[in-house]
Amino acid sequence: MSSAKPFPAFESVAPSLVDVAMGRAAADLVVKNGRWVNVHSGEIIPATDIAIKAGRFAYCGPDASHTIGEGTKVVDAAGRYLVPGLCDAHMHVESGMVTVTEFCRAVIPHGTTSMFIDPHEIANVLGLEGVRLMHDDALVQPTNVWVQMPSCVPSAPGLEEGGAVLGPADVEEAMGWPGIIGLGEVMNFPGVAANDSTMVGEIAATRRAGRTVGGHYASPDLGRAFHGYAAGGPEDDHEGTRMEDAVARVRQGMKAMLRLGSAWYDVAAQVRAVTEMGLDSRHFILCTDDSHSGTLVRDGHMDRVVRHAIAQGLKPITAIQMATINTAEHFKLEREIGSITPGRRADFLIVSDLAALSIDAVYGRGVELAKGGALCVDLPAYAYPKEAKATVKLGKALTKEDFAIAPPADHPERVKVRVIGVVENQAPTRALTAELPIEKGVIGIDRQNDVCRIALVERHRGSGAVVNAFVSGFGYRGRCALASTVAHDSHHMIVVGTCRQQMALAANRLAEVGGGAAFFAEDEERALVEMPIAGLMSDERSEIVARKADRLIEAMRESGCTLNNAFMQHSLLALVVIPSLRISDKGLVDVETFSLVDVFL
Amino acid sequence: MSSAKPFPAFESVAPSLVDVAMGRAAADLVVKNGRWVNVHSGEIIPATDIAIKAGRFAYCGPDASHTIGEGTKVVDAAGRYLVPGLCDAHMHVESGMVTVTEFCRAVIPHGTTSMFIDPHEIANVLGLEGVRLMHDDALVQPTNVWVQMPSCVPSAPGLEEGGAVLGPADVEEAMGWPGIIGLGEVMNFPGVAANDSTMVGEIAATRRAGRTVGGHYASPDLGRAFHGYAAGGPEDDHEGTRMEDAVARVRQGMKAMLRLGSAWYDVAAQVRAVTEMGLDSRHFILCTDDSHSGTLVRDGHMDRVVRHAIAQGLKPITAIQMATINTAEHFKLEREIGSITPGRRADFLIVSDLAALSIDAVYGRGVELAKGGALCVDLPAYAYPKEAKATVKLGKALTKEDFAIAPPADHPERVKVRVIGVVENQAPTRALTAELPIEKGVIGIDRQNDVCRIALVERHRGSGAVVNAFVSGFGYRGRCALASTVAHDSHHMIVVGTCRQQMALAANRLAEVGGGAAFFAEDEERALVEMPIAGLMSDERSEIVARKADRLIEAMRESGCTLNNAFMQHSLLALVVIPSLRISDKGLVDVETFSLVDVFL
Repeated sequence: MSSAKPFPAFESVAPSLVDVAMGRAAADLVVKNGRWVNVHSGEIIPATDIAIKAGRFAYCGPDASHTIGEGTKVVDAAGRYLVPGLCDAHMHVESGMVTVTEFCRAVIPHGTTSMFIDPHEIANVLGLEGVRLMHDDALVQPTNVWVQMPSCVPSAPGLEEGGAVLGPADVEEAMGWPGIIGLGEVMNFPGVAANDSTMVGEIAATRRAGRTVGGHYASPDLGRAFHGYAAGGPEDDHEGTRMEDAVARVRQGMKAMLRLGSAWYDVAAQVRAVTEMGLDSRHFILCTDDSHSGTLVRDGHMDRVVRHAIAQGLKPITAIQMATINTAEHFKLEREIGSITPGRRADFLIVSDLAALSIDAVYGRGVELAKGGALCVDLPAYAYPKEAKATVKLGKALTKEDFAIAPPADHPERVKVRVIGVVENQAPTRALTAELPIEKGVIGIDRQNDVCRIALVERHRGSGAVVNAFVSGFGYRGRCALASTVAHDSHHMIVVGTCRQQMALAANRLAEVGGGAAFFAEDEERALVEMPIAGLMSDERSEIVARKADRLIEAMRESGCTLNNAFMQHSLLALVVIPSLRISDKGLVDVETFSLVDVFL
Repeated sequence: MSSAKPFPAFESVAPSLVDVAMGRAAADLVVKNGRWVNVHSGEIIPATDIAIKAGRFAYCGPDASHTIGEGTKVVDAAGRYLVPGLCDAHMHVESGMVTVTEFCRAVIPHGTTSMFIDPHEIANVLGLEGVRLMHDDALVQPTNVWVQMPSCVPSAPGLEEGGAVLGPADVEEAMGWPGIIGLGEVMNFPGVAANDSTMVGEIAATRRAGRTVGGHYASPDLGRAFHGYAAGGPEDDHEGTRMEDAVARVRQGMKAMLRLGSAWYDVAAQVRAVTEMGLDSRHFILCTDDSHSGTLVRDGHMDRVVRHAIAQGLKPITAIQMATINTAEHFKLEREIGSITPGRRADFLIVSDLAALSIDAVYGRGVELAKGGALCVDLPAYAYPKEAKATVKLGKALTKEDFAIAPPADHPERVKVRVIGVVENQAPTRALTAELPIEKGVIGIDRQNDVCRIALVERHRGSGAVVNAFVSGFGYRGRCALASTVAHDSHHMIVVGTCRQQMALAANRLAEVGGGAAFFAEDEERALVEMPIAGLMSDERSEIVARKADRLIEAMRESGCTLNNAFMQHSLLALVVIPSLRISDKGLVDVETFSLVDVFL
């Protein structure tokens, strides 16, 4: 466990806050003459001063002159808005391909001062130890990063074998850690409705600890299955996409988490439950779920979500409530974060235009962290241990032979095979078929019909096992291959290519750098994004990662792949919980029948 | 500790709820075709069925047919409203002069299914053991009674010595009891603002336990003292009386608890913060604080408060939210109570007219508890132990000599004395003076100017000590006296009378019956309300107590006392925290300077 101390509890500093409020002691910081965006009362109150001591608000009211003494830093807000620091209610740091520290570095200038992170990806590689690493990385941040304990590791028990298995005992243990705030999205929604013992046990352990159970009900069915899920205990859901999804969740006493991520656009439709149907907005919460580094660098984070929500017709104060007090109350943290009121952590933004949410300065625990969009503090360096950077275990150097599929015993000239069909802008795949030629004893590809190779390379146990199959939809030309150790959710290595030699080159290169994504074409490394931490995260800054990721997309494009979110499509091909056909370390998986199927028809 | 088991936790029955929702098991109870008053979404949804299992809601939606099996009781709501059971967010059972059981018996038919009780009065008599008795009485109820640990026992350290002293260690201990939900109203508001170590310690112990700190800021000063109080940690306040009080509390991140008790009328003015100023209503909560038995029997309980709030212009759904989900969220019980949604305790009302809140039936944990205003279940008998009924310890039989004040040594003909002046309809008293004659070596009274005797009889330690002084304002004629062991907050015995003989008779009678209130006139017992439990509560039903209390008021009236709330005025005369002049076991107390003063000027 980290030696980092959690931020001092309210009760350990309360007397000093009282002393400041009473004028008996000097504040550390006073911000004068702001417009107080009061998320408790739903008002905007002009001419407000706030005084801060020990990282918490000590006084919020019309005149903090009596709290100013020698050593008090005084800032003039000059009539600008004082907005509570923004909270991201559910997100995966790993989606940014950076560490918690680097994620914070990227999002603090965007006003995000509290994040609720579910380290589900690293958990699939490193198990509870991976969660602990992210937890410890989170604890040293100058902003608030709470961890949701991953609930579904592996995502598809029986259909895959990832790097780890977590269960109720792990959840119970994690609930005792200082930075754990609840259970991460319970994705196994059929399991909840079926009283699967792992799901029941994990939810029970979370509830016994008095923590919040995160939900994930990824189905349009609002009938019996939905009601069964709601009865089982999940308290929120960010998988809704339609207005009726949000309405249904709130009516059942769950929080509707409206998501705007790099590839998720679920706010606009659902927020109409408030703007058009007039539902009470208090149980609606904003989140990002997944943000790529490029989004963070170019578009923003929770500021982007709040702006977008306002653009959908929400009053600014309501949108801000959905990213502050609503989130805080959901996680029972209302006395710690989510508003500018006495006793809470002094996380706030100075904003010059409320509807545009133009953030001039960001304060976390009373410290100015960012100004004019740029970080102005050093972030502590959290060092991930060597073991966390040695997770790509192939057991051997791969050769082109590892990516060959021999034809069936009866040696026909062509064979009929199953093909995973990628669909533009959709997560589900199609289960296609193709007739492929046999070339020198190996089944060949069909360039004309855009059928190329896919391989799932086992990388957690060094078994050297490779599962080979076929995929269609990437549009690759020439001799090229993309290998990635970001391979949801088991995070083995997915290699897609037109050429077995390039596939071996890319796979071996990733083993060399500890994981990430490598694109080879014509025997040349065309792009590389190193992600040595668990094969999922870089230890570089998000700008650098974004640049390398851009280069990767460019290289894929140069080889003919023009899909939107091409890398995401690639990395989701092993996600054996979303229909229709996927690949796992156990073989091809029919995700309609949840069974293994042969590559040959 | 009681052997009563708390209601089974959600997680222990969750699988059975899921089974019902999925149609795999039969519900215990289904209510069909109701109008769902949905306090999460703020909607009223017609044609809703609810299914209940193990005392909790398992399904809430358009059709519960699939949950009906053999043994399922089916009730037709016939289009009537389904309203969550009402919560009283802060109250003192002792004000009803009955036990927790009898209080529940009285209020369940009025729709109150959750109460947050602060057993402050019994704590002043029996200390932590008294709190435990109320706690254990609470645990066996078919409704939810959570206990707030009393914070200020005694109310005025140094100025009085009551039956017990509680401090941070007691608070810490109590926080581990199953029925303790938080800290009771922190009344020592100057102490909070001054960082008094007892207040700081108790608040810290409560926060460490993750519980809610109740507030009580009884001052119109919204300046520095208020801000100091808010910074110290209290999370709610029910002492506001003006609109600006409610606004100030909510802006500071506290909950504004709007109170309608037997003698408190604080809803109408404060609710204008919502109806006129348009503040977000989510942080406003309704409560009663103090209800006399007569109010419960004749006017109602939380139903009365909700009706009153609606009459002030609130939408019915908003008023109901203030007595359900808002309260539940405040105490972090949102997953247990406060709404009709899956997983929560099946506490609900069937209501035929929403604005009038006409309650046809009351269900608690899925059991029909009341119907047409009448209880329809047996309540368990909770037996208070003998020690709790032997708290009136005078040490001797009192005689008229115990109520005599000898004149000062210099024997003038008349002496000038301090007189406590009762003020109609106000809690504060006046510090008056009078010149009184000396009759047979004893200072006499002044009937013409309505000055009679008051005595504080020590009753906790059997010391036989009596403090004598004078009081004005009751209007007593002839020879009469009222004795009461309800004597806020130290609960010694207050005796007020025109005749020392009647005072002795009344005091001795109370010692005989274990406390309560006794009125004697012309050597005859004219009224008696026995309250043997701690000298504060009857063990009879509230109807009987209300009848006896009515008889007491009648007897006082027959002897000339026409004050409103005459008994309350009497019982508050030892409350040495409210100005100006009061009596305690230590003498007369000047509650402006917080010092003891002599009866002689």
